[in-house]
Amino acid sequence: MTDKSRLLKALAREPVDTTPVWMMRQAGRYLPEYRALRERAGSFMALCQDPEAACEITLQPLARFDLDAAILFSDILTIPAAMGLGLHFVPGEGPHFDCPLRTPADIDGVRAPDIETELGYVAAAVELTKRELNGRAPLIGFAGSPWTLATYMVEGGPSKIYRHIKALAYDEPNALHRLLGLLADTTAAYLNAQIRAGADAVQIFDTWGGTLSTSAFEAFSLAYIRRIIQGLDPAPVIVFTKGGGGWLELLAASGAHALGLDQTVDIGHARQRVGDRVALQGNADPALLYARPDAIRREVRAIIRRYGEHPGHIFNLGHGVTPEVEPDRVAALVDAVHEYSAR
Amino acid sequence: MTDKSRLLKALAREPVDTTPVWMMRQAGRYLPEYRALRERAGSFMALCQDPEAACEITLQPLARFDLDAAILFSDILTIPAAMGLGLHFVPGEGPHFDCPLRTPADIDGVRAPDIETELGYVAAAVELTKRELNGRAPLIGFAGSPWTLATYMVEGGPSKIYRHIKALAYDEPNALHRLLGLLADTTAAYLNAQIRAGADAVQIFDTWGGTLSTSAFEAFSLAYIRRIIQGLDPAPVIVFTKGGGGWLELLAASGAHALGLDQTVDIGHARQRVGDRVALQGNADPALLYARPDAIRREVRAIIRRYGEHPGHIFNLGHGVTPEVEPDRVAALVDAVHEYSAR
Repeated sequence: MTDKSRLLKALAREPVDTTPVWMMRQAGRYLPEYRALRERAGSFMALCQDPEAACEITLQPLARFDLDAAILFSDILTIPAAMGLGLHFVPGEGPHFDCPLRTPADIDGVRAPDIETELGYVAAAVELTKRELNGRAPLIGFAGSPWTLATYMVEGGPSKIYRHIKALAYDEPNALHRLLGLLADTTAAYLNAQIRAGADAVQIFDTWGGTLSTSAFEAFSLAYIRRIIQGLDPAPVIVFTKGGGGWLELLAASGAHALGLDQTVDIGHARQRVGDRVALQGNADPALLYARPDAIRREVRAIIRRYGEHPGHIFNLGHGVTPEVEPDRVAALVDAVHEYSAR
Repeated sequence: MTDKSRLLKALAREPVDTTPVWMMRQAGRYLPEYRALRERAGSFMALCQDPEAACEITLQPLARFDLDAAILFSDILTIPAAMGLGLHFVPGEGPHFDCPLRTPADIDGVRAPDIETELGYVAAAVELTKRELNGRAPLIGFAGSPWTLATYMVEGGPSKIYRHIKALAYDEPNALHRLLGLLADTTAAYLNAQIRAGADAVQIFDTWGGTLSTSAFEAFSLAYIRRIIQGLDPAPVIVFTKGGGGWLELLAASGAHALGLDQTVDIGHARQRVGDRVALQGNADPALLYARPDAIRREVRAIIRRYGEHPGHIFNLGHGVTPEVEPDRVAALVDAVHEYSAR
């Protein structure tokens, strides 16, 4: 990065030579070099907490593909993990907390983690990765949205119906607001630590905001995303609410510099709706990576055409890369983005 | 029903004394009388295929709650089950097909079931239930959307990423269109059998349309919903695309008389978007039924106020009733709808 990278230009809605592309979960299980490293590690969280391993994994996809950004290998649950709720990962099921927060008293017993001592491994991984990247590409830091973190902490694990946290939202909204406020302030400090360590941009993953009613989304998710953004040091912020296509106007007013779109949204229509307020990131269906390369190229071209000539497009998937994707399909997508968007 | 019921009036966007209410999956596992019957039965599909059991289960919630409609106890997978793909239900996991359709050759080997001989039990259940209802409430028949059925038939079971059917959509669209066309024509005949047996309205459940990109939704889901509707005998049709809030304008032009809304949509905003073209059904968060009765009442009132004074509202959840809901919460919701919407 002798001059501003394509990603940072697109985030600032400045013209670029070709659309920048990166992918959520671009480092991970679909890459054999990741699986080899993972087998030698004790656990998934051990990899996240080891700055050298996190750095190595972050750089793996950049060695293979012509990506325009690195995203730190980490997990949205680092913050809850540091809060002493007994996080562990159940193979094939995902994260579980031994001590879920079910009552106002449970919530009042939660303490904020110390970012420097308890989560210092994340800033260390950012610093190391920035050094290793040596200007080849910008580095994106990230965190989960407060609502998304709270969902795991209250449900105790993955859920389809979110019965406990939604009952809490209806029956004990003040207690839930206290938890979300604590998570928002902690997350702002956590992202600031990443920005100070060298992260060029940060993304807030609002994975479960899209399960809420519009009014509950505004009260329990968007309000705390806004609170995080207001507390951040200067850096471009990308907000991705999965299933949030109905709320783009609200999200565009959150203070975010860019919005992530899932595949359900027509990206040309989204551009019309948000005007020039934000950059847009997305939005190929993650399942496109199971199609043949010629189909991948056709779909990439269709998305680029739909987006049109406006500045401010960052190509990405509508959600993360899924397991068992063949790496050559990722290469086909990345190369097609650069080819079809070249000015 | 000596005169037209509230449900049928609302579907025709005529004034009603109070907003009609029913709930997707209002008959089922959360009711102890259902669980008792289920324990005596051999399997879930055996219950669906036994007209007397289906009738009894259909009527169970009407004995408890002041509901404005019955919906036939059945399953969207009755059609694929009759196509010889080896359907069985894995406890805790859901439906599985022994012979999923993965290739164009697999698809070309599929035959349409005979509605009268192989699916006659559904019309028989409708007839029996209509007789037992004896005009107390209208009866809703239903079917899955072709895309939703195809998803199960191609994936072989529940999925989060839909890799096989989406790869087929990208790589072999003609084969997938043949399957969807067959399913649409079969479904139209199947719903007509329900209408002729006495169903007062029918609902098409497009459970997985909301996982598609906008263009893929139009091509692979909406086009076949429209084809079904064009093939139906006269009866009000409700179309429910879960996660389809971005496509209400498209859905309102499908020929449907009413659109089901999930909880992510603001129902007042939805009414503005679709104008007077269709009735709207929805849209409390299913998780509301885990809240306390006073919170249920507040939220019901908020949804009714948001909808406003226009005719054409049918109160429902944004998806089905979930297991472990306490029946008294369903009663609280039903009664609150009638109380707060009384003219």
